[in-house]
Amino acid sequence: MTPEPAVTDVIHAGGEHLPVLLDEVEQRLIALSGDAGPVLTAHASSTIAAGGKRLRPLLVLLAAGDPPLDSAPLVRAAAAVELVHSATLVHDDVLDVAALRRGQPTVFATAGRGAALCTGDLLFARAFSELARNGRPDQIEVLSLAGSALAQGELLQRADAWNTAVTLERYLERCDLKTARLFGGACVLGALQTGGPHDELGEFGARIGLAFQLLDDVLDVSGPAERTGKHRGTDLLDGTVTLPFILAREHDAELAGLDPRTIDSPQAAEEICDRIAATGALEEARARALAMVDEAKAGLPAGLADQQHFALEVVANGVVARYS
Amino acid sequence: MTPEPAVTDVIHAGGEHLPVLLDEVEQRLIALSGDAGPVLTAHASSTIAAGGKRLRPLLVLLAAGDPPLDSAPLVRAAAAVELVHSATLVHDDVLDVAALRRGQPTVFATAGRGAALCTGDLLFARAFSELARNGRPDQIEVLSLAGSALAQGELLQRADAWNTAVTLERYLERCDLKTARLFGGACVLGALQTGGPHDELGEFGARIGLAFQLLDDVLDVSGPAERTGKHRGTDLLDGTVTLPFILAREHDAELAGLDPRTIDSPQAAEEICDRIAATGALEEARARALAMVDEAKAGLPAGLADQQHFALEVVANGVVARYS
Repeated sequence: MTPEPAVTDVIHAGGEHLPVLLDEVEQRLIALSGDAGPVLTAHASSTIAAGGKRLRPLLVLLAAGDPPLDSAPLVRAAAAVELVHSATLVHDDVLDVAALRRGQPTVFATAGRGAALCTGDLLFARAFSELARNGRPDQIEVLSLAGSALAQGELLQRADAWNTAVTLERYLERCDLKTARLFGGACVLGALQTGGPHDELGEFGARIGLAFQLLDDVLDVSGPAERTGKHRGTDLLDGTVTLPFILAREHDAELAGLDPRTIDSPQAAEEICDRIAATGALEEARARALAMVDEAKAGLPAGLADQQHFALEVVANGVVARYS
Repeated sequence: MTPEPAVTDVIHAGGEHLPVLLDEVEQRLIALSGDAGPVLTAHASSTIAAGGKRLRPLLVLLAAGDPPLDSAPLVRAAAAVELVHSATLVHDDVLDVAALRRGQPTVFATAGRGAALCTGDLLFARAFSELARNGRPDQIEVLSLAGSALAQGELLQRADAWNTAVTLERYLERCDLKTARLFGGACVLGALQTGGPHDELGEFGARIGLAFQLLDDVLDVSGPAERTGKHRGTDLLDGTVTLPFILAREHDAELAGLDPRTIDSPQAAEEICDRIAATGALEEARARALAMVDEAKAGLPAGLADQQHFALEVVANGVVARYS
């Protein structure tokens, strides 16, 4: 995987130990997705090999601060978080009938619904067996609560599908459950491992997770398609009503009355995206996300070492930079 | 839920504490399936309320032997095992496009694939948060390995679907993964909680789990439909090739050449069942299962208290009695 520029910045800011630890996490992920019988191993390994930003493992490591003498427990926590995230993606692809993820064919597309469902379950179970080896029930509790939240967030998204009147509060609750909790959990796990201020770092992670989701939803409307690898407006085509639409409908009565089921082509979806953009909703949504990132940074606990504090700020800025 | 006669026998044999603990498990399951937002709570609760034999929690309690002064950790372990089992059933119903389970409409049938997938994920995550409260990483390890095995077993079943040449070894491996491991894990968890001989009791559980699966597969062919709540031969209609067919094909060349995709009605499936039965395969399969149960009982460790030993024998016999 080629890290995105923002991740490279964080690695530079975070200290020389970071690339070493991230590589150890990668090795653990490869080991954990292997050895599950020939069929599941192929699916689990391709899921893990497809990569992604490894942003959640990075948060685990950064929240831990100075690397402990024995890095293994920290690496296990980081790998476990990524496994839970990967499990969710594989299940999401089943629900979204998605053919591609990160430019690669999904397990769902190559092997069908059954294989994808089982692969997700396997990755989920392995996350807990990996984390269990740390001997820390408090860590298991954090990961399983985040896992419950993910399931609830995914369901909320299904329940609210096609509902153009969904409230802002409900949208934010969904983002909290399906994205922010695991970001927060990643930071809590890192901090727990080294005895850091886990409550405050968890709050930091949750805030940048929420900003991350908001900006991801903006990107679906703003494009460009070359960045996202998909047409603009795919969320609406799938019935997922997000912040840009929620803000735009206040300014455009015709948008408010839209039935997204009538959007019958990628071109029609792009036209709706242009309409949403014309209301200024994208700038408003971005401003909300940036405010959250500012809040996250301002809320960083005072006692952190300079390098850790700086690296966490860089990762927070990186969430924004991805979308600028 | 009305316990089946065999379960009642076990409760009598196991001591006065058993009904009390089983009731505590039931209360925990109700609490754990609640409180997950209005939609998921409804699905998770209906899944748990639909009941079932609670055979796996019973094994946790029996393997623990004399009840510990503080029953809460044991009850949590028992509830966690049942949650993992329930999560798997909800996901299986998605894959099987199943309308009914235990005579109740499935989550899949009432709320769709998305809700069922999320409900399963939620129950799975909650299993680990419940068990984490015991503060025993060794227990988490046992449950997550069983969870991995379930996913692998389910996938193996999909991979082998419609393959009438599947080997006996592969069939037994599938049964081990999808049934025996969680039975074994249940016994290990109970024994770990009270410091009992967990390896031997885990072996006992795995053996009766395997016998349980074999007899379940016999029942699908033998009926009667009033017992199973479904037509005979539904496994074959779904493409699941099990022990009775594997044994029967050795005696009946025409059966061996059967393409199960050509079975186009429940009546046709019943005719195939009659053919399988005519070869003597059902008796042979039952005999194999009974031998496993005998082996399970013979392998019970010598140092168990008389009452625990007796209760475990009763539960092993109960597995057989269900199918006699």
